[in-house]
Amino acid sequence: MKDRFTVVYRLTGSSELARAKAQDICLEQTVEVPADVPPRYLGAELGAWMIGHIESIEEAGPDAHEARISFPAESSAYEITQLLNVIFGNISIKPGIRVQSVELPASLLSHFKGPRFGRAGLRQWLNAPDRPLLCGTLKPMGLSTPQIAGLAFQMAVGGLDLIKDDHGLSDQPYAPFEARVQACAEAVAKANRETGRRCAYFPNVTAPADKLLSRARFAKQAGAGGMLFSPALGGYDAMRMLADDDDIALPILSHPAYVGSMVTHKDNGWSHGALFGWLNRMAGADGAIFPNFGGRFSFSKEECAEIRDATAAPLGHIKPIYPNPGGGMTLARVADMNEMYGKDVIYLIGGGLLTGDSVVESCRFFRQLVEPA
Amino acid sequence: MKDRFTVVYRLTGSSELARAKAQDICLEQTVEVPADVPPRYLGAELGAWMIGHIESIEEAGPDAHEARISFPAESSAYEITQLLNVIFGNISIKPGIRVQSVELPASLLSHFKGPRFGRAGLRQWLNAPDRPLLCGTLKPMGLSTPQIAGLAFQMAVGGLDLIKDDHGLSDQPYAPFEARVQACAEAVAKANRETGRRCAYFPNVTAPADKLLSRARFAKQAGAGGMLFSPALGGYDAMRMLADDDDIALPILSHPAYVGSMVTHKDNGWSHGALFGWLNRMAGADGAIFPNFGGRFSFSKEECAEIRDATAAPLGHIKPIYPNPGGGMTLARVADMNEMYGKDVIYLIGGGLLTGDSVVESCRFFRQLVEPA
Repeated sequence: MKDRFTVVYRLTGSSELARAKAQDICLEQTVEVPADVPPRYLGAELGAWMIGHIESIEEAGPDAHEARISFPAESSAYEITQLLNVIFGNISIKPGIRVQSVELPASLLSHFKGPRFGRAGLRQWLNAPDRPLLCGTLKPMGLSTPQIAGLAFQMAVGGLDLIKDDHGLSDQPYAPFEARVQACAEAVAKANRETGRRCAYFPNVTAPADKLLSRARFAKQAGAGGMLFSPALGGYDAMRMLADDDDIALPILSHPAYVGSMVTHKDNGWSHGALFGWLNRMAGADGAIFPNFGGRFSFSKEECAEIRDATAAPLGHIKPIYPNPGGGMTLARVADMNEMYGKDVIYLIGGGLLTGDSVVESCRFFRQLVEPA
Repeated sequence: MKDRFTVVYRLTGSSELARAKAQDICLEQTVEVPADVPPRYLGAELGAWMIGHIESIEEAGPDAHEARISFPAESSAYEITQLLNVIFGNISIKPGIRVQSVELPASLLSHFKGPRFGRAGLRQWLNAPDRPLLCGTLKPMGLSTPQIAGLAFQMAVGGLDLIKDDHGLSDQPYAPFEARVQACAEAVAKANRETGRRCAYFPNVTAPADKLLSRARFAKQAGAGGMLFSPALGGYDAMRMLADDDDIALPILSHPAYVGSMVTHKDNGWSHGALFGWLNRMAGADGAIFPNFGGRFSFSKEECAEIRDATAAPLGHIKPIYPNPGGGMTLARVADMNEMYGKDVIYLIGGGLLTGDSVVESCRFFRQLVEPA
C-alpha cells in the first residue's frame, strides 16, 4: 500500500519561515527525529517514505503561505485517532500552523463509513420534505424531568422536526439520564401520535467513556430518534463508533462544545470547513452544529459559508451532512439565512422558543418561516 | 448537595468588557438562555442556583482581568466530560476567555480517584531511588517490530527507567500493535533479567474507542509496565477510565499530541498549569508530558514552572504526579534543568538517543547525568 494522503497547512510568516515550518512538519508529524540521525534509522530501508513530503508551497495572502504536505496512508493506521495525530498532533503545540484541508486517497477513505444517514437518509428518517429542517433544544439545565419532557411535548406538537437535549444535560441528579430520556422519548411519541408527524428526539449521549455505549443503547431502546454528541469532549472516534454501531443505528448531531480553541485564531488550529465539515463527516455525524454568523458568537459569514460548503463537498463514498447553524433564527433574518443555506440545512433554535407566552405557538411560528402555507 | 465549584477565567479587555464577558459566561455555561426568559424557566424554583455566580473580578495586567465564577457542583454530573463542558464548553468558541485554574469542593473531588500511582507510587513501582527518572522513546515510526524491540532492549540495558512508544506508534501494518507490544515487553524483561533493574515499558494505547480497553488489557498481559495515552485524541475521560481499571492497574503517561491549540494563545484556551497539571491529575495520569523550554517548541521557562508547580499543588486526595519535560536533555543543560525540576521529574529523551554510535552508551551517558557515580 504505497498511497499517500495530503494535508494543506496555512503557515504564518515569510516564504523562508514557511518553508522551514513545512520541513519541520515533515519530520515532527512522522519520524520525529533530527534529520541527522544515522541512516540505519532513516535510510534506504524506509526510503524517505515515512517522512512528510512537501508537494508545494504557495503564497496565501500577506504574511501567510499554504503548504501541501503528503504523508504515507499507512501512517494513519486507518484510525481516526492516529489520523488526527499525523495531521495535527505535535505541531498543534507550535504557533503559526493551521490545518486548511485534508485530502485522502480512496484506499484510506475506504476504511471509514462516515455518517450512517447523511442528508438524504435523515430526510427519509424524519419523513421531511425538501425544506429547511427545524431543531429545538431542551433547556435550561436545572429543570426537572417532567418539566423537560413537557417542553419536548410542546415542541413536537408545535411542529419541530428534531428536538435535542441541551448539550449540558447529562446525568445530573435533578434530571438523571435514563428517566429523562425515557420521559422525553415518550412525550415526543405521544405528540407524534397526535400530529401524525415524525418528530425525532435526540438525547445527549456525551458521557464517561465506560458509560457511552450503555447510554446510547438505552436511548435507542427508549425510542430516541437520534443522538447528540460533543466529539471534542468525548472523542471524535467515539462518535465514529456510535455511528458505526449497527444495533444503535441512529442519526447523530455533532455539538461544538469545547472545540472552540481549534478555530478562535486564524494562525493555529483548523479551518472552519475542515473542522466542522470534513472532520465531522469522517467521524460519522449526520449534522454539524456551529454558531451562526450574526449571533452571539463570532463566526463570520464567510466562515459559515465555508462550513456549509464542506458539509457537501465531494468526499468519495462519505455522504453529505447537514450544516446546523445555531442561534439567530428570527423573522428578520429568514431571507438572509435562506440565501446562505438554502433548503439543505437544520436550523437550531434555542432560548428563542422560551421567550414567548407559548412554546407551541413559538414552534408553529418558526415552522411557518421555513414552510410558508 | 448545595456545593459550588469555582473557575478562574482570564478575560481580555477593559473592566467593562470583562464584566460583560463574565456575565455571559454565567449564562452560557449553564442555562444557556437569554436573561429575559420567563420566570417559570429561571425563577424561584431554580433559585438563581444554576446560573454561574461572579464571585470577584480583578485586574490582571494590561487589558486583562481575572474573574472567579462559581457553578453548582451538581451541574458537572460528577463526570469529566460534563465537568469540562461546564468549565469551557460553549465559551471555548468565544475569543478572549482563558481558563486559569479550577477549584473543586471536596464533595465533587471525591467522585474522582485521580492517578493510581502518583509520584511515590511510581517510584516504588520502578524501584527507583530519589533522583530524576529517565524515559526513552521508541521511534522513528516506520521501523519494523524487531527493530523497535531491539531499541527497547538497548535502552533498558543502558539504564533508562521507562521506555515509551512514540505517540505515533499505533497499529500500523509495518509494526502492528500486538506483535510490537509483545516483542518490546519481552525485550525489556530480558534486559531487566540481565541488569537486575526494573525498567518499565509504556506502550501507546491511544486507540479507536472500541479498541482502547482491549489494547490496554493486551499490554498488561504482555508484561507492559505502564501505558502512554494522548487524552486530546482519545478523550480525557477515556484516560480516567484506564486509570480506574483495577484489572489493568498500570501507571499512565499523558502525551500532549493534539492539545496544542488549547495553549498556543494567551487569550484563549487553558493556562499551562491547569491543562497539563490539574486536568491530567483529575483524569488519572501519573506523568504529564510537555515540551520543555529551550527545545524545539515554544513553551517559556515560566510556563514550564507553572506546569511543574501544578503537578504537585494541593488537590485533596488526588496525588501529585511527575512533570515530564521532553526535549533538551543535554549535558549543557543539566544544571539548568536540575534547578528547574529538582528530583521529582521524568526526563523524556527522544531522538537524542539515536544520534550517537550506540544507543546503550547514549543511555548510560544520560543516566550518569542524573545519577553521578
